[in-house]
Amino acid sequence: MITSTNKTHNKIGFIGLGNMGVPMAKNLISAGYRLQVYNRTISKAGELDAASRTVCQTPAAAANGVDIIITMLSEDEILKEAVLGEEGILKTFAKNGVHISMSTISPDTAQLLSKAHVTAGSRYLAAPVFGRPDAAAAKKLWICTSGDEQSKEIAKPILESLGQGIFDFGEDAGGANVVKVAGNFMILASMEMMAEAYTLAEKNGLDRTKVAEFFGSTLFNAPIFQNYGKLIAGKQYQPVGFKSKLGYKDARIAFKLSQQAESPMPIVSIVHNRLLSAVAKGWGDTDWVEGVSRGVSEDAGV
Amino acid sequence: MITSTNKTHNKIGFIGLGNMGVPMAKNLISAGYRLQVYNRTISKAGELDAASRTVCQTPAAAANGVDIIITMLSEDEILKEAVLGEEGILKTFAKNGVHISMSTISPDTAQLLSKAHVTAGSRYLAAPVFGRPDAAAAKKLWICTSGDEQSKEIAKPILESLGQGIFDFGEDAGGANVVKVAGNFMILASMEMMAEAYTLAEKNGLDRTKVAEFFGSTLFNAPIFQNYGKLIAGKQYQPVGFKSKLGYKDARIAFKLSQQAESPMPIVSIVHNRLLSAVAKGWGDTDWVEGVSRGVSEDAGV
Amino acid sequence: MITSTNKTHNKIGFIGLGNMGVPMAKNLISAGYRLQVYNRTISKAGELDAASRTVCQTPAAAANGVDIIITMLSEDEILKEAVLGEEGILKTFAKNGVHISMSTISPDTAQLLSKAHVTAGSRYLAAPVFGRPDAAAAKKLWICTSGDEQSKEIAKPILESLGQGIFDFGEDAGGANVVKVAGNFMILASMEMMAEAYTLAEKNGLDRTKVAEFFGSTLFNAPIFQNYGKLIAGKQYQPVGFKSKLGYKDARIAFKLSQQAESPMPIVSIVHNRLLSAVAKGWGDTDWVEGVSRGVSEDAGV
Amino acid sequence: MITSTNKTHNKIGFIGLGNMGVPMAKNLISAGYRLQVYNRTISKAGELDAASRTVCQTPAAAANGVDIIITMLSEDEILKEAVLGEEGILKTFAKNGVHISMSTISPDTAQLLSKAHVTAGSRYLAAPVFGRPDAAAAKKLWICTSGDEQSKEIAKPILESLGQGIFDFGEDAGGANVVKVAGNFMILASMEMMAEAYTLAEKNGLDRTKVAEFFGSTLFNAPIFQNYGKLIAGKQYQPVGFKSKLGYKDARIAFKLSQQAESPMPIVSIVHNRLLSAVAKGWGDTDWVEGVSRGVSEDAGV
Repeated sequence: MITSTNKTHNKIGFIGLGNMGVPMAKNLISAGYRLQVYNRTISKAGELDAASRTVCQTPAAAANGVDIIITMLSEDEILKEAVLGEEGILKTFAKNGVHISMSTISPDTAQLLSKAHVTAGSRYLAAPVFGRPDAAAAKKLWICTSGDEQSKEIAKPILESLGQGIFDFGEDAGGANVVKVAGNFMILASMEMMAEAYTLAEKNGLDRTKVAEFFGSTLFNAPIFQNYGKLIAGKQYQPVGFKSKLGYKDARIAFKLSQQAESPMPIVSIVHNRLLSAVAKGWGDTDWVEGVSRGVSEDAGV
Repeated sequence: MITSTNKTHNKIGFIGLGNMGVPMAKNLISAGYRLQVYNRTISKAGELDAASRTVCQTPAAAANGVDIIITMLSEDEILKEAVLGEEGILKTFAKNGVHISMSTISPDTAQLLSKAHVTAGSRYLAAPVFGRPDAAAAKKLWICTSGDEQSKEIAKPILESLGQGIFDFGEDAGGANVVKVAGNFMILASMEMMAEAYTLAEKNGLDRTKVAEFFGSTLFNAPIFQNYGKLIAGKQYQPVGFKSKLGYKDARIAFKLSQQAESPMPIVSIVHNRLLSAVAKGWGDTDWVEGVSRGVSEDAGV
Repeated sequence: MITSTNKTHNKIGFIGLGNMGVPMAKNLISAGYRLQVYNRTISKAGELDAASRTVCQTPAAAANGVDIIITMLSEDEILKEAVLGEEGILKTFAKNGVHISMSTISPDTAQLLSKAHVTAGSRYLAAPVFGRPDAAAAKKLWICTSGDEQSKEIAKPILESLGQGIFDFGEDAGGANVVKVAGNFMILASMEMMAEAYTLAEKNGLDRTKVAEFFGSTLFNAPIFQNYGKLIAGKQYQPVGFKSKLGYKDARIAFKLSQQAESPMPIVSIVHNRLLSAVAKGWGDTDWVEGVSRGVSEDAGV
Repeated sequence: MITSTNKTHNKIGFIGLGNMGVPMAKNLISAGYRLQVYNRTISKAGELDAASRTVCQTPAAAANGVDIIITMLSEDEILKEAVLGEEGILKTFAKNGVHISMSTISPDTAQLLSKAHVTAGSRYLAAPVFGRPDAAAAKKLWICTSGDEQSKEIAKPILESLGQGIFDFGEDAGGANVVKVAGNFMILASMEMMAEAYTLAEKNGLDRTKVAEFFGSTLFNAPIFQNYGKLIAGKQYQPVGFKSKLGYKDARIAFKLSQQAESPMPIVSIVHNRLLSAVAKGWGDTDWVEGVSRGVSEDAGV
């Protein structure tokens, strides 16, 4: 019963108050949950309603006494430490508790952490998301899950308060993260593809913006092509949303997964080298739209 | 005035009754136009309402006595012959008549034909389309135009009876064809991208179809990713719609335009070599979805 | 008998007094031949010993009254004109005369010209060369031949006075040109390969020059790696020997042959796009070493 | 003084009796050295002259009481264990002793081990080699060194008894390994380049072998092009010398170094994906000539 489920889990642990974590935590509070929060930079907790959150000094403290712990961290190693470390989640987490792991991490790490939870008597649900901070704030995230069925049942009402759709990818803990890696690759590939096409149009004397508007409202009328299409066509590189060096990290992860899966991906090589070059040229802190689009323009002498 | 315009142009020449041309001609007849049709294989004219069409023996005959001639042919050379040949359009076409050229041709050819028309005292409007035969039948084509403004005004009601949207790309006759080439490239790149991503998912133990459904209903909810995504994910290669060897031709045209425009396009190289390999392997007559997707699968040993 | 052969052919037609043609013509004169020369810029004939050459006003005149005509021109179209044009070789050339065609042209053109000669009752021998002007002057060219056996016999003593080795590639007129295209590709690929490797070394803190010296004196102790290796390692881009835009033309020819032969060549795509980018950046008139090496350096931010 | 140096180091530790290690150890014995050998599979020591070697049970034992220890192992991790492990070299090695590390390892590992030696009061000299087992047996290895100058002086007579040339790449311990990685990349790139060129020739009706002979005796008259060229041209894939999966490992290492150095290398991507595909197709245990060449052939449908 969802009512009782909500009651049981009324208090949730939440670790990671970054650009994504803060709006997600706010949405959980709006949905009626109280949070035990932990963040390396404690002051970030100040952005949350004081009556609805308890600030903890360690991941272990955030996981203590709750049945659900959510993590939204930036890197595999930080998440591993938060779970397995001296002051990690597993030190205190309840038997049968569910760790909803929403960070973008590699499938490897997901599998490793899933095993550690099982050994400890608790559960791990992979639940990475697609969407930027504004989508997180608007409860418009797309959430991919993988793990055991019971964890999915338990997590469902919580995830519904964070996103606009939940898609399941089976029982293997790494599955949802594979989809996340594949999606990040497809976004990068779309950016490169548009930059190539719009530069071709530009060099033929056409207005890049009109070309992007055409595709974004017809064959390619999807958010990726509309939003990034506008930025790429207009060479609009400010403000910096997602940095080129993080886009490069995504490309590296996709490349590594292609190695592990023994699945050659020539377009991954293209976008990997595009962003590696951006970093090498000192553009690591530019928006990834600039990292891709400016690289294509420079190669074409414009 | 559209009424008078329609009256003036009530009879139209129409050349090219292939898979695209027939449904387009039918829509023109439904819209009240009478057609002077020419096709290499004359019998194709039998698919059109007999009362609404006159069958001609040459392009020159089809262009005789009308102010508008539409062409929908499969190759640059065939179109050149139909315009410039011994029995070509220019032999009979009216002063100030408008040739609406809807075939997929290179920008070069468009510019050459435009000049020939101007020299002859008539006009050329590039109007290539995006859409397969079923879209043509449903008046759902996307039409790109380029050429002089007066031709666009004259062509407008006619094009509106053929498609769901008209997008203009300026006065250079080749402009609309550049957009057509860029769009074909983006479709091919999307196919390769999906084949790589879904094969990665497959080799990680995921269900390709579920992954395609997820992307097609979220970040990539555009027709290209939904329709081709389903075929690629399901390795559904029958029936043959558009052949691999024609997809290869599109890739060659994109590559050539990248050379002419001095605009390097690394993803064009990838899809070009993918389809060149398909042709080399003897898959030229398979559907281009097979040409791309099976190639990616074989490289990954699945 | 070579002596009689030499006597018979003591007078030779020679068309094309460019950077390669002049030293080759001088070597023929040194070997005892008298030349009927034609060059678009007639003044170039002044570099040859006056007693040993007759200056002609047309290709037809140069081919008149001799059994052997040699061509060394820069482009397919120019050679076609020199053979097939109004004042071309075929207008005057002797029955059974042998046209030794030493220009770098496409296999297509070679086959077309071979047929034209056969139709006219004369013969065509493809004999493209590897080597720069200094190698031509030193009689150090490598010569590849293809065509009928009798032509090869007749041409042998003449070719021996121009190069250090003759290698035969069969009867198809295009064969030797395929080898020439393949060799140009391998040179370009070697240049890109070295630029990548030496930039990797540089970014690891090593001395590029020492690395190039090592490879050039051990595993890769061949002229290509020694000569170009030194220039690439030292980023020595002056003086301009062979221009980037001509290197780009070589890459285009290799790419086109890969299309015609249905033989995918991914490294051709890499070097093609490298030089296309060089041309797009305005480096078309730089040495091709700069076109390749500077492109690799810029991509690496150095 | 070299004489006294030889005397001092008359007894040397030697770890790693694989395909390369055995012939190298034999050459050291021939040069008058006595060896303390360690190998995981002890029986391999039986191939060495019994009077000249002492068999040890651990790396620590092999390093005990000598001033020089040589390692020739197959992987970074195995070497790290042999140096840093419970029974590793550092447990017993002499102050100021020189570890001559001849394995193919990453620059990272070299730097890490160098630091560990310095901390322990001993020295580390990187000395990776180019050459296959037959070259090792014939003392024809090419040896690259990097490290401190004194170590190089001490190692010189020993290395001279193993190879035909020593090339120095500075003081940074990782330098020589960067050159080794770069060289392995250049070999792989040369193989791919030849496979592409010879397949192009084949599809144009030429004899691959003749084409390879031409290049191997003219512009590309270096061992790499002669030896591999013959195998590639003849599609001679037996016996298996160096496995495709090891070639793939080399490509991965080159790719990783390109990432670490922020130096984009498009041809690395090509050869990486070529061998990744070979492994994915189940060809991991074939000779790497087959891994590369058969892949190119299949893509071309031959």
